[in-house]
Amino acid sequence: MSDLSRLSLNTATTKRWTLEQAVAGCVAAGIPAVGPWRDRVAEAGLENAAKMIRDAGLRVSSLCRGGFLTAADPEGQRAALEDNKAAVVEAETLGTSELFLVVGGLAPGEKDIVAARQRVADRLGELVPFAADHGIRLVLEPLHPMYAADRALISTLGQALDLAAPYPASAVGVAVDTFHVWWDPQLQEQIARAGREGRIASYQVCDFNLPIAADALLSRGMMGDGVIDFATITGWVRDAGYTGDIEVEIFNQQIWDADGHQVLAAMKDRYAELVLPHA
Amino acid sequence: MSDLSRLSLNTATTKRWTLEQAVAGCVAAGIPAVGPWRDRVAEAGLENAAKMIRDAGLRVSSLCRGGFLTAADPEGQRAALEDNKAAVVEAETLGTSELFLVVGGLAPGEKDIVAARQRVADRLGELVPFAADHGIRLVLEPLHPMYAADRALISTLGQALDLAAPYPASAVGVAVDTFHVWWDPQLQEQIARAGREGRIASYQVCDFNLPIAADALLSRGMMGDGVIDFATITGWVRDAGYTGDIEVEIFNQQIWDADGHQVLAAMKDRYAELVLPHA
Repeated sequence: MSDLSRLSLNTATTKRWTLEQAVAGCVAAGIPAVGPWRDRVAEAGLENAAKMIRDAGLRVSSLCRGGFLTAADPEGQRAALEDNKAAVVEAETLGTSELFLVVGGLAPGEKDIVAARQRVADRLGELVPFAADHGIRLVLEPLHPMYAADRALISTLGQALDLAAPYPASAVGVAVDTFHVWWDPQLQEQIARAGREGRIASYQVCDFNLPIAADALLSRGMMGDGVIDFATITGWVRDAGYTGDIEVEIFNQQIWDADGHQVLAAMKDRYAELVLPHA
Repeated sequence: MSDLSRLSLNTATTKRWTLEQAVAGCVAAGIPAVGPWRDRVAEAGLENAAKMIRDAGLRVSSLCRGGFLTAADPEGQRAALEDNKAAVVEAETLGTSELFLVVGGLAPGEKDIVAARQRVADRLGELVPFAADHGIRLVLEPLHPMYAADRALISTLGQALDLAAPYPASAVGVAVDTFHVWWDPQLQEQIARAGREGRIASYQVCDFNLPIAADALLSRGMMGDGVIDFATITGWVRDAGYTGDIEVEIFNQQIWDADGHQVLAAMKDRYAELVLPHA
């Protein structure tokens, strides 16, 4: 039997499952942790979701996700701040310290990426004290540059670490998601830096499939199906001192259409084969 | 009348045109330079192509493209070197000093991006003396990270400059293509560095369209149709001291399907409106 003690199911991987189904699936598969998305938590009801996961004996590795901080207008900025504060409370209630932030892209019609990035920094500064008061770390997730305009203006781990720099590592961390960062020529040094700074809040694994899916969001693949060298990247994360959960988060139509239990079985096999030996 | 003296048509923009048609189109439109692709040059015959462009009074801003240097086997490496030497001779014959290199992706089935990048460096080292003997500068083009696996393992301007560093600026330069680099948080500083090092060999403009096209290669758009801030990036290139040609290179099915003369008219308008004032 492989050691699955660090494996976590991000619920996006089994998109059609309710949170209850995902929790039951993890228990049946011997997966000890879950990283829920907020929509599935809301659907179950926050307190009920927390109890359901706790009663099943699972850990919550993270909550996905807050963010979308780039609104240019005051109302949009207020709304984003309120939504992120709600996400902080949800994370606290669920019993995880790690709240993912996908920071958002350009405002509608905007082209000034420099100004938009400054708004991310400004909103982050406003959100940190609230999150810290609740014991929640804001996890900046660099997304693949193909999503820079419409999803996340943080495109590299180095950039995420620069944004995190003004804050304690307990307040702002970074995520290493193989899909988003595998191509980065500075990856090894920035993972090492993230480790030195104590900011690696999550390691997420999934593959980068080719050709890129017609809906570019859905090019994430099961480990081993794409181009990513999990041995090397996982080794860099290990060498950086990370010993936390390893989440599998896959957006992929074929995987979403498959039976969830079979997906979890494949995920365990690939994790044991490609990730675990290097973690 | 706008000053079109630095504008160049990359022939990929008018993909259905032969070189002869592209040359005639440029002359009719008052565009003084052309950046031909090798397939269209080969089709016309090298000497004939050179004469045709010269007789039309056009400059050749660059030749697209050599590269694909990442073969892992000795025969593949020999073939790549031969093909790139042929491209050097073609560039020389056409009367341009700038040969674009799209360096290639992972070898079939390969996942070791670190090793593949080392092969790029190795092949570059073998090619530089030959190119320099012919007065040709090898132009490393960083491609958008979405093409890292299958097209170019150089994903950022900084990485291209690191690869160029062992060689004189007259032997190895870099290209700044807005589509590929607009998202890079280090873009301003790396453009400035490229300028200081005298390595900006080409400035190519086209937009980044959303949503990403189903064939991700075809997401390039006419300036103004996508998300790129041409004023800012063009200003950075200007401030870096670049005074050379500005090529328009667009892969886009709709533009390819349109009448070439109308494409050139739109290209001139957008260039005059969005690029020229900041160049």
